[in-house]
Amino acid sequence: MGIMDQYIGKLNSLRFNNMFQNDFFETWTKTRDELEAVFTVAEALKELRVNNISTKVFDSGLGISLFRDNSTRTRFSFASACNLLGLEVQDLDEGKSQIAHGETVRETANMISFMADVIGIRDDMYIGQGNKYMRDVAQFVKEGNADGVLEQRPTLVDLQCDIDHPTQCMADALHLINHFGGIENLRGKKIAMTWAYSPSYGKPLSVPQGIIGLMTRFGMDVVLAHPKGYEVMPEVEEIAARNAKESGGTYKRVNSMEEAFENADIVYPKSWASFASMEARTKLYVNKDQEGINKLSKEMVEENGKHIKGWQCTEEMMKRTKNGSALYLHCLPADITGLSCDQGEVDESVFERYRDPLYKEASWKPYIIAAMIFLAKLRNPQEVLAALERKGIKRVLDSNCCCCK
Amino acid sequence: MGIMDQYIGKLNSLRFNNMFQNDFFETWTKTRDELEAVFTVAEALKELRVNNISTKVFDSGLGISLFRDNSTRTRFSFASACNLLGLEVQDLDEGKSQIAHGETVRETANMISFMADVIGIRDDMYIGQGNKYMRDVAQFVKEGNADGVLEQRPTLVDLQCDIDHPTQCMADALHLINHFGGIENLRGKKIAMTWAYSPSYGKPLSVPQGIIGLMTRFGMDVVLAHPKGYEVMPEVEEIAARNAKESGGTYKRVNSMEEAFENADIVYPKSWASFASMEARTKLYVNKDQEGINKLSKEMVEENGKHIKGWQCTEEMMKRTKNGSALYLHCLPADITGLSCDQGEVDESVFERYRDPLYKEASWKPYIIAAMIFLAKLRNPQEVLAALERKGIKRVLDSNCCCCK
Amino acid sequence: MGIMDQYIGKLNSLRFNNMFQNDFFETWTKTRDELEAVFTVAEALKELRVNNISTKVFDSGLGISLFRDNSTRTRFSFASACNLLGLEVQDLDEGKSQIAHGETVRETANMISFMADVIGIRDDMYIGQGNKYMRDVAQFVKEGNADGVLEQRPTLVDLQCDIDHPTQCMADALHLINHFGGIENLRGKKIAMTWAYSPSYGKPLSVPQGIIGLMTRFGMDVVLAHPKGYEVMPEVEEIAARNAKESGGTYKRVNSMEEAFENADIVYPKSWASFASMEARTKLYVNKDQEGINKLSKEMVEENGKHIKGWQCTEEMMKRTKNGSALYLHCLPADITGLSCDQGEVDESVFERYRDPLYKEASWKPYIIAAMIFLAKLRNPQEVLAALERKGIKRVLDSNCCCCK
Repeated sequence: MGIMDQYIGKLNSLRFNNMFQNDFFETWTKTRDELEAVFTVAEALKELRVNNISTKVFDSGLGISLFRDNSTRTRFSFASACNLLGLEVQDLDEGKSQIAHGETVRETANMISFMADVIGIRDDMYIGQGNKYMRDVAQFVKEGNADGVLEQRPTLVDLQCDIDHPTQCMADALHLINHFGGIENLRGKKIAMTWAYSPSYGKPLSVPQGIIGLMTRFGMDVVLAHPKGYEVMPEVEEIAARNAKESGGTYKRVNSMEEAFENADIVYPKSWASFASMEARTKLYVNKDQEGINKLSKEMVEENGKHIKGWQCTEEMMKRTKNGSALYLHCLPADITGLSCDQGEVDESVFERYRDPLYKEASWKPYIIAAMIFLAKLRNPQEVLAALERKGIKRVLDSNCCCCK
Repeated sequence: MGIMDQYIGKLNSLRFNNMFQNDFFETWTKTRDELEAVFTVAEALKELRVNNISTKVFDSGLGISLFRDNSTRTRFSFASACNLLGLEVQDLDEGKSQIAHGETVRETANMISFMADVIGIRDDMYIGQGNKYMRDVAQFVKEGNADGVLEQRPTLVDLQCDIDHPTQCMADALHLINHFGGIENLRGKKIAMTWAYSPSYGKPLSVPQGIIGLMTRFGMDVVLAHPKGYEVMPEVEEIAARNAKESGGTYKRVNSMEEAFENADIVYPKSWASFASMEARTKLYVNKDQEGINKLSKEMVEENGKHIKGWQCTEEMMKRTKNGSALYLHCLPADITGLSCDQGEVDESVFERYRDPLYKEASWKPYIIAAMIFLAKLRNPQEVLAALERKGIKRVLDSNCCCCK
Repeated sequence: MGIMDQYIGKLNSLRFNNMFQNDFFETWTKTRDELEAVFTVAEALKELRVNNISTKVFDSGLGISLFRDNSTRTRFSFASACNLLGLEVQDLDEGKSQIAHGETVRETANMISFMADVIGIRDDMYIGQGNKYMRDVAQFVKEGNADGVLEQRPTLVDLQCDIDHPTQCMADALHLINHFGGIENLRGKKIAMTWAYSPSYGKPLSVPQGIIGLMTRFGMDVVLAHPKGYEVMPEVEEIAARNAKESGGTYKRVNSMEEAFENADIVYPKSWASFASMEARTKLYVNKDQEGINKLSKEMVEENGKHIKGWQCTEEMMKRTKNGSALYLHCLPADITGLSCDQGEVDESVFERYRDPLYKEASWKPYIIAAMIFLAKLRNPQEVLAALERKGIKRVLDSNCCCCK
């Protein structure tokens, strides 16, 4: 009996054929089966790697990345995912390109994709812009492939946009699945997605939106809390409400961190910018008013400052959660009181207590991204997983490997 | 019968043994057979890839790139070509290097080449500089190999210099060969290489020079047109005239876009800077007068402005070509009237009509670069093509691949 | 009999099991056997490559680099070493990361390491900082692996810190071993590590410190010479003295280049900054006083200027060495009188005469780095070397390779 059997068996029970030759945008545009296929492949790839078995399904090919916002962990997660599958990362650095010289998005998308199997984009700072841009790119390369310009259709993976952060939230969910011992055990668990005070900068809305949009798929009791003015996009709240209804969970919004944390199994306290300032920032961006953006950025931090009280994940606050020991989540980096700032999202003692689980939460992201690519590019994932195990090429050569590679 | 047979047969009919362990600079320093070998290998590599057969001939090794001018498509074409053959790209970013601290070109060339199989350089903005620099680098690593410093001799591929743009023009030519159904069908075709108005910046001369230097090899009727002052290098015109004579074609210069377009089968309207301003820029560069360069750059655009009339590829202008439907070429990105600028090189409707062919034209560049490397690094290209097909390693793993890689 | 036999035999005679799953910091924290194991594996890897046999021991995996100082040769050496072994380089560019947004070193170290087999860091400009930072990173990823966050423990390779420059000095030593025909022939040879005048910038102390710390391991007569004020770290001098005693060599400090060069077999004249200015720079760095650093940098060069006389490796100076023909070493780039500056570390004629040996000296660095990784990541290096030869995968495909890869 092989180590891939349970994963292949699980995949056989799911319908996900629409994922082949497709992209990965918001989680709510994927079926529950498709999400489970991602979790399953992510765990299968990890199992192979832990057993020193190569997961390279590409002999050559490029993974293109485009980061329109600074990034460490997502950049390295994407690079790790590509490397895991055999793709070489090529970063599209807009500063080094001729984009300023009048290349259109359609043209650039095709020109970088002649050998590209995947394109990963992060574009999260401007409401109404990032997701749209990614969908344009995906559409252009789909047409490029249909028109015979591109030999393959690169799959687009949303590495964070203005609406969702699917690779982050799927990694968060797989962390919960592992922590609670199965996806069925998430049913009825209370998760508090709450705003938290930050002195650093005006952060995107994609994490809270992604969390309420995804966690409501699993029958959880999802609670969103934030100060007045820090609403998320109403469309996403509607999706969360509908998801909850369909999955047998609940979704509600409350007005304080205290109420949200009350008896919660999981808490996700995290800062984001106010909706009005996000909209203002987009207008300035469209008008290319960088000075205005800089000025607004300062105001955003000042605006946060009105909500220092009651919006920090302190030890006191944690005591309100179930048995005082809810699982603490964060997408990292966090603003840690007494470590990275005077007052921030979370007390240092709370953060320190959950550091190991937080790092493990993050460690799923490369596998989630790899699974998204795997399912988009391979017609029969089950057979390929079986083939990888059967071939058993060592990731790191050892002395037992002599007669075959 | 294998899919490589026709390509191997063609290669067997050509003499190209001088390409082994050699570089690729101007097309006119290569024989007609050598150019055809590049076209043949480029098509063979594409055929393998389309059939999902790996074209990796390097198990490890580096492809070094050095871009002294912004670049998207050439950067990605070089990266794609290297990846296709199994080389990892390492970019020499002069800003991050110690070059400012007094490294000589000889030293740097050797220091970056210990594991380098190919070096690709773009250095196109200064007349008399770029090509010379590349030839220096090529000479230094050749000596480094001869002296036992380098275990291999890296092949140098000119990714655009002040004199020629061989990877672009060879891709353009292979596009024409495919469009017209064979290299023999280029004979007698009229191609108009013309200046066009651009409001963006002072562009290098290497494309018009490369086109008249290459297309005259195939018995074509090559016409160059530009406003007074926008002459290309006289040495290259001499080469074009000689080529035309030898190949049974013609080369001539005319004074208007109208005349050049008249009954043309192919048009290549594209902006470049005036010769005097290019020379002035080089002097400023040698004197490290960046302020002077910035000032001159503005003047170059103003100078272009004197020739707005009559130098745009409009629908009216296209009607003059053969049956009003000449094939439109461009190296991209183009300055498109109404899209990227108020008035530019080409009408939006013309550009849009030819978008698919233009993208396909560009799609040959990775294969052209890969073919140049292939022919420079492999002693017996025919046998290696046969071996690649016989081994049949899948580029993307599929379920049929289980007992062998 | 195989080409790996002599290397495997040598390794069998050495004890180096502590290197597995370990890091490479200062050479003096490694045993003599461990140093010899690095030399042996470096030569074995070169032998395989020269014979066109693949040395890829990783099927996938990342090599992370972090350069806090400009670099060409070390950057490319690290990239070459990783490529040689099958690892893809991913550069942590602190400018593009979120590090400014409050990531801790522990967090960043783990977040970039999910698929990392090696981390190479250069951080050499601030006394008391660079080595400490690297040790922190190494400790954090070791804990990350122990805590189940990382599936492997990335090995840390010191690519130059404030204390040592082990990859440079080990490459220098392997160059000497090859030049003099064996490590045993280094015994009794006199090597002069001397300060030399430079007009360029305040260079780190790690090369002179690394050289006196390493060359005293081999029974050599090691002499250090520098102007007053240009002392190296006293701890390292103590180590050098102890090493010399243990190895049967000598270590002493003299006050002039003339005295140091007298009858020397090997000379290593090279500039570095005065100790007081290095300490001052560190204080400014800790206080984030960039303006102060810039001002100090100018003063450092002025301070150097007081010692132009008597501290240049001229032809006259070289005549003092054994038979006037000591082997000249330099880590490159050198400040060459009449070439890169008016007056500098070395006469152009001296440098030119030794250019080939200098380039060969540098050519060992990729192999030294690869050997450090090899010994840290593979449990049984001898068996893996044997397996690589037995499998005999071609680095560059040729026509003889058809039935197997």
